Formats: sequence, C-alpha cells, structure tokens
Amino acid sequence: MTTPPVHPTFHITGQSGTSRTGRITTAHGVLETPAFLFCATHATLKGLSIDSIKAAGTPILLSNTYHLMLQPGSDLIEQLGGIHTFMGWDGPVFTDSGGYQIFSLHHGSVSDEIKGKRRNMSSFPPVKVTEEGAIFVSHRDGKRHHLTPEKSIQVQTELGADLICVLDECTPLHMTRAQTERSMHLSHRWGKRSLDDFEQRKKPHQGLYGIVQGGIYPDFRKHSAEMIASMPFFGHAIGGSLGATKSQMGEVIDMALCDGALYVRPIHLLGIGGVEDIFQGVSKGIDTFDCVSPTRLGRHGGALIDNAYWDDAAEDWRPKNHINLWKSCFRTDPKPIDASCPCSTCALYSRAYLHHLLKAKEILALTALSVHNVCFMNRLMAAIRHGIATHSLGDVRNRWSCAALMASGPGMS
Amino acid sequence: MTTPPVHPTFHITGQSGTSRTGRITTAHGVLETPAFLFCATHATLKGLSIDSIKAAGTPILLSNTYHLMLQPGSDLIEQLGGIHTFMGWDGPVFTDSGGYQIFSLHHGSVSDEIKGKRRNMSSFPPVKVTEEGAIFVSHRDGKRHHLTPEKSIQVQTELGADLICVLDECTPLHMTRAQTERSMHLSHRWGKRSLDDFEQRKKPHQGLYGIVQGGIYPDFRKHSAEMIASMPFFGHAIGGSLGATKSQMGEVIDMALCDGALYVRPIHLLGIGGVEDIFQGVSKGIDTFDCVSPTRLGRHGGALIDNAYWDDAAEDWRPKNHINLWKSCFRTDPKPIDASCPCSTCALYSRAYLHHLLKAKEILALTALSVHNVCFMNRLMAAIRHGIATHSLGDVRNRWSCAALMASGPGMS
Repeated sequence: MTTPPVHPTFHITGQSGTSRTGRITTAHGVLETPAFLFCATHATLKGLSIDSIKAAGTPILLSNTYHLMLQPGSDLIEQLGGIHTFMGWDGPVFTDSGGYQIFSLHHGSVSDEIKGKRRNMSSFPPVKVTEEGAIFVSHRDGKRHHLTPEKSIQVQTELGADLICVLDECTPLHMTRAQTERSMHLSHRWGKRSLDDFEQRKKPHQGLYGIVQGGIYPDFRKHSAEMIASMPFFGHAIGGSLGATKSQMGEVIDMALCDGALYVRPIHLLGIGGVEDIFQGVSKGIDTFDCVSPTRLGRHGGALIDNAYWDDAAEDWRPKNHINLWKSCFRTDPKPIDASCPCSTCALYSRAYLHHLLKAKEILALTALSVHNVCFMNRLMAAIRHGIATHSLGDVRNRWSCAALMASGPGMS
Repeated sequence: MTTPPVHPTFHITGQSGTSRTGRITTAHGVLETPAFLFCATHATLKGLSIDSIKAAGTPILLSNTYHLMLQPGSDLIEQLGGIHTFMGWDGPVFTDSGGYQIFSLHHGSVSDEIKGKRRNMSSFPPVKVTEEGAIFVSHRDGKRHHLTPEKSIQVQTELGADLICVLDECTPLHMTRAQTERSMHLSHRWGKRSLDDFEQRKKPHQGLYGIVQGGIYPDFRKHSAEMIASMPFFGHAIGGSLGATKSQMGEVIDMALCDGALYVRPIHLLGIGGVEDIFQGVSKGIDTFDCVSPTRLGRHGGALIDNAYWDDAAEDWRPKNHINLWKSCFRTDPKPIDASCPCSTCALYSRAYLHHLLKAKEILALTALSVHNVCFMNRLMAAIRHGIATHSLGDVRNRWSCAALMASGPGMS
C-alpha cells in the first residue's frame, strides 16, 4: 500500500486559558488533540487486537524505533509495506527515535525517577555516547549497535510512521548541571543533523519532532525551547528528566513553555500518562502524551476508573484512579468495572469474573483489562477536549481525576 | 438471568452411510451436529474474548468441573447467576464431570497415550478411588477433595451448564483386563447414582450424558454401550482409554458403536480434536467432539490449515494440517495464514507479522493464532455437515485433511 503524499498539518481549533484543542491531520487520518498515544512497542499494543484497538476508539499508536530495529528490523518492515501495513493499522503512527530506550535501559526510566526509584547502573548494559552517536548493547542478544541521528532517521523513514522524532540524549535526573548542559548542546547538534538527514530521506507523509532538553534547569529548558522552535520541525516534544516529583514535572513543563516559543507547533510530553499528570500537562498547553501505563496496569490486574469507587466494606467512596482486581473484595462482586463504560469488557464481564481470570492465570484477564484501560484513556481525552471547548476543564478534572477528592480527605460521603 | 425451562432435545436431521447430521436444541440455542466443543477450561476459551469467540462462529463451549470447583467454586458461580452469565456467554455450555482431570492429572492424558507418552505416576498427586468416589489432592493448593457422583452432579447443576456428564473413572491404557472390567462396573454404578441424583437436583434446562467405558476390550465396550443406552440419559459419551494409536482409536469407537444401541441419542467422543480423527469419528456416526488442541496449538505458534501449504523453498505443496509460525521461512512471508479464511487474523495479519509477534513474545501472537484456529474448526465442522447433507464427506475429507495427501507422498505437484 503506497501512502498518498500528504504532509502532516497542525491547526489549533480552540483555546481556554493556556489549554488548547487542535487537529493533526496525517495521511492516515486526523488526530484531535489533546490526545493520548498508546505504546505499540513491538508494533502491537500489548494485549489488544487491531479490531479491539479500533472498537475502543483509539486514534493513534506509538511504536519504538529501538525495539523494531532489533526485531524484526526496519528494512523488513519497509519491504513488507511499512509499519501500518505490517500491524494491520490504517490510523496515524508515531515513532520515537530509539534514544529514550537506549538511555532508560541504562539509567532507569523517567517514571522510575518520578517514583523515586533509582537503578543500579552497573547491572545494565553500558551505553557509550560520542559526538557521532550512541553505541549500545542489544538487550536481546548482546550485539553492539551504533545509533546515530542519521541512523535513527533512516530507521524511522523505513518504518514509515507519520510522526517521527530526532535522536536526543535522554539525561537522567542525577546528572550535574554541567553534564546536563553539555548533553543538551549535544542533543541540539543531533537535532540539527536529524533534521538535515530527514530533509533528504523523508517520505512525503512524514513530519519530524524536535526534542527540548535541559533537565531541571530553567535557563537550559528556556534556551533549548528557543533552539528547537527556531528549527523547521513539524512538532516539539519535551524530553529528558522531568524532575523527581510530580510537582517538579509541572515546573519543568513551565520552564520549557515559559517564553511561548513552542506553542506554534504541536507539543508532545514524552512518556507521561497518569490521569492527574495529563490534566496538569493539558492545563499548560501540552497537546499529546504517551505512556505504556494503561496496558501495563491492565496486565497487572489494574482497571482505570474515574476519581473514586464505592467500597462495600467501608460503605464509603474511596478516591482512586484505578482498582486492583486481584483484591479479594472483588471475588463476589457482580458489578462491571464501570457500569457507564461502553467497552466490551464492561459490557460482558463482572469484577468477580475478572478476579477469577486473574487467579486462574488466564490471558483474557490481561486482554480484557487492557481493552478497558485503553477505552478509558480515549474517553478521558474526549472529555478533556470537550472541557477545553466548553471552558470547563476544571469540572472535567473533578469528574475524572481522583486528585481533587484526595485533597478533601478519604471520606467523601 | 433465569433460564427458561426448556429441556434439551436431539433430532437427527440427515444421514449418509453411518454419518449423520443432527440438532441439539438447548435453552441457550441450537447446536448443529457434527460439532466441535471448544474447551473453556476455567470458564474462558484461552486467548479469546467472548466477542471474538462469537465472531469466529463458535456454537458451544465446554467447561471443566474439576477446575471450576477448585477455582472459583461452583457455589460462587451459581450465586453470580450461573456459568453463562459468569462468562458473558449466552450460547450452550457443556461441562464434564471432573473425573477426566482427576485421573489424567494422575495417569497422564488420553492424548499422551495415543502419542505414546507415559507419565511417571509417582510424580503426580495420588488419587484414591473407593466405591463412594474419588479422593484427590488439588493441583492448586494441595488440599484434599472428595468427588462423588452426587458431588459432581451438585457442582454441575450449580454451574448450570446445558449438557452435563456423569462421573466416571477414566482408566488409562496400561490397566489390565481385570482392572478395566472392575473399573467399568464401578463407572456404571456411578453413572446410575449420577442419574438418580440428577433427577432430584437438575435444573429444567439440563441434560445428562452417560459415559461408555471398557478400555480397549470389545466385549466390555459392547456391554458398556448397552448398559449406558439402557438408562434414560440425554446423551452418550465415549470415554476412557481409546487405545495406543489412531487406528486403535477407530477400533475402540467401532466396539462401542457396533450394536447400534448408542445411535438413538447424541454421541460425544471425549477429548479428541485432530482433523483426521474428527473425520474418522464422523464417518462412524459420532456427533460431537472436544479438545483443547486448537487453542493450545495456537499458543505454541501453530496455525491450522486445510490439507497442505505451498513451500516457497521447495517449490512444492506439503501435506500438513498446520504450519508453525515460529519457523524462519515465515519471517518475510507477506501472505496471511490462509487467504480464503474469513477470520480477523487472516484479514489483518501476515505470516511475517505473526512470526515477529512470536519472537517478540507478544500476547497478540497467542490470541490471533487462537482466533484463527477456532474459526478453522468451526469452518471445518460446517464443511463436514454440508458433506454429510450432500453425501460428499469423502470430498470434504480430501479438501480439509492432509491424511489423503500424505498417503500419496510428499510431492503433489
């Protein structure tokens, strides 16, 4: 299947304070923003068929250059017609540059940092960074690979995603100010090389995202945002360390957005997908998010819910954004996860049945919970877009995020 | 959901030689026979959602008393509205008695025997059989349980399946003639007790199957068939050891069917599901089959195909009833498993993509292959019914089973 030569475009369709709605039009369909990008890491959204992805109202998938260059290889995917044909997915696809995986497999992930987890670096395969690129050891077979900005662009053009990313060095929180600065400048030079290579190599339907670095330092984030905005990218992403806490994440976003340079293009916040984090990002003007959390949570027995659930034993509402179906309180619970959810899981299965499937180690437990969580995220983003359009994002937050309820204490009856 | 009080009925709708088509009407829908019963062991057909089970044209599910009495318990399933409501499945359900699992976990399965695998009995939890019933140790938690004919009927009436089974002792091949005879008489007494208890306890929509035992001994099989046929069961099943080879299995079926006593009711062949085995059974008058093989094969990377596939390397057809998607020859193969198959897997995914998913250890590999195999079996059974109705079962066998092609040698071009 050849893709018609349509460049991606971005239009802002509405604004409410610093929040905004927008529309990214790609050769493979329209993405209404704010939007959540689901991680189809190995060219599959874990636990869901393409049919169930569509039935859950999913607008876009994000695949990982790192994983696909190692297995099955981008040349093979190109030979088989590109990533859309390969996955059987005709909607838009975003790919990252591979940088995040290389560095997070070494340093630990951004999410680990926000959660205060720090990895022992010596137990992970080393990454050597030079001006040329990053030399890393495959987690699959121990082979050495060299990922340069040009190689990342080559892989991403072979994969054929609609929206692709520059290679950046994804720095961890525990880097010094001097290391962060040196790394930021390197990422800017890699960004420029990525852009130059992209102009030569790109497929007509592809758009490139530049990535803002600068760690937790206001002057670096501001400088990086100006640098990235000054180059002719299609979109902007905020990457690297977002701080040690959720509130520091908000400060880092503010640093990157403070002078307004990024707002002319779609802005993606890399690797973030918690419900309250999304409200925080949207309120500052972020357009898109991605995270593995909805399906990972599902595979661990967690089902996303809006703001609270009724605790039969305590006879009270509990502020929560998910319930853990492994808990024995669900053993006899005939209710669906959420009676108001239109997903096939809530239409067909009780909490008691899902609890049973988890205990019996059945695949359906994982797939049914993942379907629900994907549907939840799509409904959440639709509610957020509606909230911005109707200037009622605060009400939408109160309805969907448990954060406001938690502020008012555990008992809410 | 209360089930309307409809007794199951069976009508023979067509005959061709000793093969026949029929219709089992239950409170939860009609089952056209010959039919394949898919094993929803823990009240879920492994790897498929109820939506995908329906989309694949599945008419009936079989659940296991042994597994469900241990987890989550039949009392809980009854409390939650019965097994149909519990699984979200509104079609017919068959349950076995629990006997097969108790004895096969100890002795090894019938399929192990046919494949020549003999287990080391000392490594499996012991089963003690008395006149009263079977005392066994749970494979889940090591607890002792006592399964009597009455207890099995109690569990199965609580589960609420449409078609249920008497408790029998499922003897292995390596029993002596004297042991087999003693066991057969015990199973007959258990069958009578099961029937008596069923008459007291049954839900109006339930029908009970008696089970023919007798091992590989013609006189015992004949006697057992007469005994079972003389009792007022709804259906007949052929159980116990079916011999050491596929041809011996045919002989054992002949022994059970030789005097025609079983033909007045639907006849189920327990635990058999190979394509050629089904043709053998259908040709002798068997109405229904069950086996875990379609979904188990899928979880191991196998996709069912009709009689042969084109081997690109050898440039020839190979007689096969399945292909193994793990094989490297599929790495670059853009074709679906079977271009003529209407399942969602063949509509969306190439062999190359499925090969990739297996290598990447993705859940979708298992679920997509299971969906295809379930659809294959449903199409196979529809073709068999059509073959009987049009007196062309031999042509259907040549089209679907690789056995005829294998007889003519590996090269068929």
